[in-house]
Order: sequence, then structure tokens, then C-alpha cells
Amino acid sequence: MFPKGFRVGGVRSGIHKKEGKKDLALFVSDVPANAAGMFTKSVVKAAPVLVDIERMKNGGKISAIIANSGCANACTGAKGIKDAKTMCVETEKAFNLKAGSALCASTGVIGQYINMPKFANGIELLKSAVGISSKNENDAVSAIMTTDTFLKKTSKRFKVKNGEITVWGCVKGAGMIHPDMRGLHATMLSFILTDAQIENKTLQKILENAADDSFHCVSVDGDTSTNDTVIVLANGQSKTGGLSPADTKKFAEALNEVTLSLAKMIAKDGEGATKFVEIEIKNAKTKEDARKIGATIATSPLFKTALFGADANWGRALAAAGRAGVNFNPEKVDIYMGGICVFKNGTALNFSEKSAKKALLKKEVKAVLDLKNGKASLKYYTCDFSYDYVKINGDYRS
Amino acid sequence: MFPKGFRVGGVRSGIHKKEGKKDLALFVSDVPANAAGMFTKSVVKAAPVLVDIERMKNGGKISAIIANSGCANACTGAKGIKDAKTMCVETEKAFNLKAGSALCASTGVIGQYINMPKFANGIELLKSAVGISSKNENDAVSAIMTTDTFLKKTSKRFKVKNGEITVWGCVKGAGMIHPDMRGLHATMLSFILTDAQIENKTLQKILENAADDSFHCVSVDGDTSTNDTVIVLANGQSKTGGLSPADTKKFAEALNEVTLSLAKMIAKDGEGATKFVEIEIKNAKTKEDARKIGATIATSPLFKTALFGADANWGRALAAAGRAGVNFNPEKVDIYMGGICVFKNGTALNFSEKSAKKALLKKEVKAVLDLKNGKASLKYYTCDFSYDYVKINGDYRS
Repeated sequence: MFPKGFRVGGVRSGIHKKEGKKDLALFVSDVPANAAGMFTKSVVKAAPVLVDIERMKNGGKISAIIANSGCANACTGAKGIKDAKTMCVETEKAFNLKAGSALCASTGVIGQYINMPKFANGIELLKSAVGISSKNENDAVSAIMTTDTFLKKTSKRFKVKNGEITVWGCVKGAGMIHPDMRGLHATMLSFILTDAQIENKTLQKILENAADDSFHCVSVDGDTSTNDTVIVLANGQSKTGGLSPADTKKFAEALNEVTLSLAKMIAKDGEGATKFVEIEIKNAKTKEDARKIGATIATSPLFKTALFGADANWGRALAAAGRAGVNFNPEKVDIYMGGICVFKNGTALNFSEKSAKKALLKKEVKAVLDLKNGKASLKYYTCDFSYDYVKINGDYRS
Repeated sequence: MFPKGFRVGGVRSGIHKKEGKKDLALFVSDVPANAAGMFTKSVVKAAPVLVDIERMKNGGKISAIIANSGCANACTGAKGIKDAKTMCVETEKAFNLKAGSALCASTGVIGQYINMPKFANGIELLKSAVGISSKNENDAVSAIMTTDTFLKKTSKRFKVKNGEITVWGCVKGAGMIHPDMRGLHATMLSFILTDAQIENKTLQKILENAADDSFHCVSVDGDTSTNDTVIVLANGQSKTGGLSPADTKKFAEALNEVTLSLAKMIAKDGEGATKFVEIEIKNAKTKEDARKIGATIATSPLFKTALFGADANWGRALAAAGRAGVNFNPEKVDIYMGGICVFKNGTALNFSEKSAKKALLKKEVKAVLDLKNGKASLKYYTCDFSYDYVKINGDYRS
């Protein structure tokens, strides 16, 4: 399912050093679209992030997103900014778009410049490589992948009063994942396209809410990136007109579904991951308390290596919760690992290590911490920490 | 060099499951000693930590520390507290010490009870196993080791007006190391013995200052433990009397040297570590800013795996600094890796990758970030992140 009035594509420009790897993607709307965006809150922001923030600040319409892999264009100073702007301007020229209507995004090695002659070559190739087929979609999504091992895209279609609306989204990200686009704390790039007609402010608010329960509930390694970017384009080409409150709610639900689905894919494809882990924090005092505890457990190397070993080492989860900066009473806590209650009211239970091991050897594992300290609950998503994480990241640049 | 008036020793009681492993240590003073202590700030505090805090709160004299490995006695509820108290009381009885004058400490698996019959057996063995020889020292230190691969002890002797004073210290800790005994954020156990005569309040202050530049500047994996404990006993048996301000300063310097030396040993013995890493944050606005950045870089899995691969991936250090919650201008930053300037005034330099690789293949590696944002500097200590860390922690309990 693809929204009306968009074309996408991906080509090999040569920016990414790996032979044959597609590395330049374009997402373009037939008409200028409303847009919402969220970017890394890191003090060290990559050039494309700085350029996009600048281009979006006046709330104008956006027609295209050009994105490359293989080079993050981060920590590249004035030349980096110039290159990012050139990427936007050349995209506008090649596709006859209004000046100022293209955004850019990059992911890859930090501290290197984009190879601009190769970029120019890529833009030429893109002219005849964008469309609406599944192949076009897959080319675009694969062009933004780095250490990702599978394509991450999803879509949702729903009926509204005057017809139907489609929300399509993709994401890349497997390492340096701990998105913080709110002021807490990936390279995560996510582009979401919809043919709904919805104004910028409402779109931004719906996106921020959706990110809170999805991208901000996922961590692979705790490392927030310089390049995190989520952009939504809403071009109105469903021709369903402005949305009623009820339909706006439906839209928000669809966006929630799309972002949550994409966020889970990131955790499933965590660098070197052998399993997907859902950590549910129940009955915290506030949602932010639950998020802090979820994030601390999800980024604990001790907890993550224990899961790799299928070891029901719940003590490491509780120890991580204890250092999360949240007040709670350990004497009241219940803990479940792989569906087995291992700790009840502050006391370790005699559980079957064999059953626990069996449960934790599965590809999808759940841990639950019930704090009995309030009414706020939240699910946090991550993966285990394996030999391959070390291998992948021990020599990523070469 | 060993301070006067102390005896130490270590035996195998059987609390630790590993065949033949010494697991019970005693540090005892001939006379009741003044004492200072620092403990984990985690919400989840192990039973021995809770018992020691209670026993020290009225500032009384301390004669002994009994410490075991193999079981953390953490998350063990009321029975855990009772067992920790019994450890203290049985030590007092066995060594004819005043009631309330023994402290206890534990390290090992969370959520299991101490095997008390085995403990009782251990105390009997300790009666004839404490002394002042190097062998006694080594037995005591090895009895508190868990995944540690070498004995961590050091000492310092200095002259004062009326004679000489000795400060002796030991530490255990290789994983779950990110001590936070201040209210920021190991199992780290450190016991420091001195024959100086110094009152509790001054001793506590000197200890807290020393920890700030040593134990609070070291992280192996970012995981703060439920059991972190540092205890200093000062028994006055040097017979040098109360210290002059100048001699107090000398004492503080000696304690700083001892704690820094022990902290560095922890980083060198980080679980699975192949190299020792010193991260110097220069010219931060405040020391706490420098500590936050140091800690964020030192706990970044991406930075640590890059070092394992001897990859001068400075971008990961800068990305980590960017998410540390500290404001600075990336355009002003200089970065050195292994003594080579790789980033100057916000711009990547063309450095020799070959030379950088050579420098980073060494057993001791330095990284420097000069923020040019103030006058505060700090050195933070850590290690790289290897396959063996995953191996060690993937199945620690079994």
C-alpha cells in the first residue's frame, strides 16, 4: 500500500564505499506537502540536521527528501553545511521543485565529507529511477541502510468520511540507536509519507506523540546519534479534504501503528542481535519514570549479555532499575522473565531454571517489572548484546 | 608496606560455588578504629550495605570488616538483612570485638542467600588465618575477587612530624563497575587501612574527595552495583598522634594516590578488556561537565568496541559527548587519539590511519577531548569492550 501522489527510488551513486550498495534515496511528492520533523537533541548535530531545521523553521511546504548512506556528514564544519545545502538545491533543480522545498538526511561514518561528484552522478540516475512500485520502495529503503540486515517499511490504510488515507513509513537503524529527539536522549532515519491533508502544527503534535511511544521506547546500544531524523510529509493527494476530529484521531492511530511497527523492527535488527526483547515497566509513578527505568535496563550491558546467554539473571534488571534515578521500593517489586515469575514482593522465587532457559532461548523475549508504585506503564524495546555486536562495531569504518 | 595494628586474612568457606576459591576475607584492627564509608546510591541496596549504613550512622568505632564473594546478598529481603547482621555478630564473637563494631560486605550473584552454615565454618577457619604477612594480604584480597583476574592492592608510606604513616588499600571489581556513591551514579568493594590517627568527620571528607577523582572516574560497563562499598579504617597505631594541617594534607595526598591507583587497576582488569583507556576531558566549564562527558564516552558501546578494533573512530567519542547533557560548541573541539590530533577546531584532520592503528593497538591508550569551554579538566578511566566481555557475562551465574 503506497500513498497517492508520491514517488520514491534508490540508486548507487558511489558515496557508500561498499561495491554495488545502493546509497542514495529520494522521496518526492507530486505537489508541495505539509511536513513535520523531529531531530536529534545531541549537542553535536550533523550538517543535514542543521540544514533541515533551518529549512523547516518557517513552516513552508516540503516536496522532497534526499538521503544518502555511507557518510554521515557529521562533524564536517562549514564544508559539511555547504554540501548538505547543495544536496537539497541539486535535488530541487533535477526535479523542478520550488527553491527551499527539499530536505536532506545522511547516515554513515562521522567526520568524512560527502563525495559530491558521486552525489551529482546519483541525482542524474535518480531522475529515471523514481516511481510507485514495490521495487521503487525497496530501492529507496535499501539505499538508506547501513548495518541493517532487512528492509524496514510498513503501511496502514484506513477509511475516512470522504474516502481512504494511506500512511507509509520506512526506517533505517541498527546501531547507534537510542533516539532522543525530545530533549532526553540513534542513527535512525525514518521517512513517513501520507496522502492525508493535515496542517503542519497538528501533524507535528501527532508525530511527537507517536514518537514518544515508539522511537523513544527503543534502544540498541544507548548511543544517541548525531543524525537522528524523522520526517513526515502529508500531501493531501487522497483528496479527502480536511479531517474531522474523529478522522484526525484515526490518522493519529495509524501513525502510531506505523511508528511502533518501525521501532520494533529496529530492535529486531539491532546490530548482532539474536533476539528481540520487550521490557514492560508496570505501575510506575509516571510514564517518564517508566521510560527512565526501561531505558536503563535496555542499555545495561550486563542485562543484555545475560539475555544473549538465555540466563534469567533478573538481578541485573533490578540493579539497573535501581540506578535509573527513579525512586521506588524494591520490596514491592514483581519481576517476570519469559513469562515466569522470578521475583515477587521483593523476594526471589524458586523457579525452574530449565523452563526459564527454554523461554529465553526464543527469538522474542519479554521481561516485566511491576513496581506497584503508581499507574503508569510503558513498553520499551531492545535486543540482546552478542559477540557479533562487538565484531560489527570493532571495525566499522574499514 | 602494611599499616601497624591490623591483621587480615582470607579463607575458603564454600559460600562461593567455585571449587577451591577463597571466598571470605577479614580485615581486623587490634584496637577500635575511626572509620569512613561510602556506599552505592542505587535505590536497590544490598543487605550488607543497609546494615553497614545503620551501623556507621552514629559514628562509633569500627574494629573489623568481614567480606565474602560468590553471593551479593542483594534483593534478599528480611532474611538477607538478618544474615548480614549475623555475619557481623559472629565476627565480633569470634574475635572478641565490641558489639556493633564489625561491618560486612558481599559481592557475587544477586538474589541468592548466603549459605550461613558455610559462613560459620569460614569464621572458624579465619581465627587461625589472619596476620600481617604478604600471604595474609593476598589471601584477603583474593577472597573478595569475583571475575577479577589479578590482585588489586597498593600502599603508600609517608613521613609526618612524629614518625611515619602507612595507607594500605585493596579493591575488587571488574564488571558491574560504574561506582556511584555520591548521588550521581559497581560491584566494587574497597577496603583501606591506615595507622593514622584522624577523626571520623575529617576522614569522611578526605575519602569523599579522593573518591571523586578516582572511583567516580572509572567505568567498565556503566552498570552501577547494588553492593558498592568503600570503607577506610584509621586505627592510630602509628602512634604519631593527631595530624597537623600540613600532615593532614599529606595524608589526603596519600589516600588520593592509593584510591587512584586502585581505580586504574579496576579499569585495567575490566571484564574481557584488552586495553586500558584514559579519557581526558580538558577545559570544560565545570568538573561535573567534564565528568558527565567522560562517563558518557567511557560507557559508549560504540566507542569501546572501536577501541577493541584499534579503530581511531573519534566521531563516536564526539557523538557520545554530544549526548552527555552538557552544552559545548563542537566547532571549537580538538580531539587526540593515541597522541595523534585527529580533529582540530571542529574539523577532521587528515591523519595517518596506520600510525593511529599502531598507537591504538597498545595496551594503554589515551584519548583527549579539549572543549575550550572553561578551565575544568578531569581524567576518566575505562577499558575496551571485547568478545570476552560478552562471553564472561553471557552466562555468569552458571
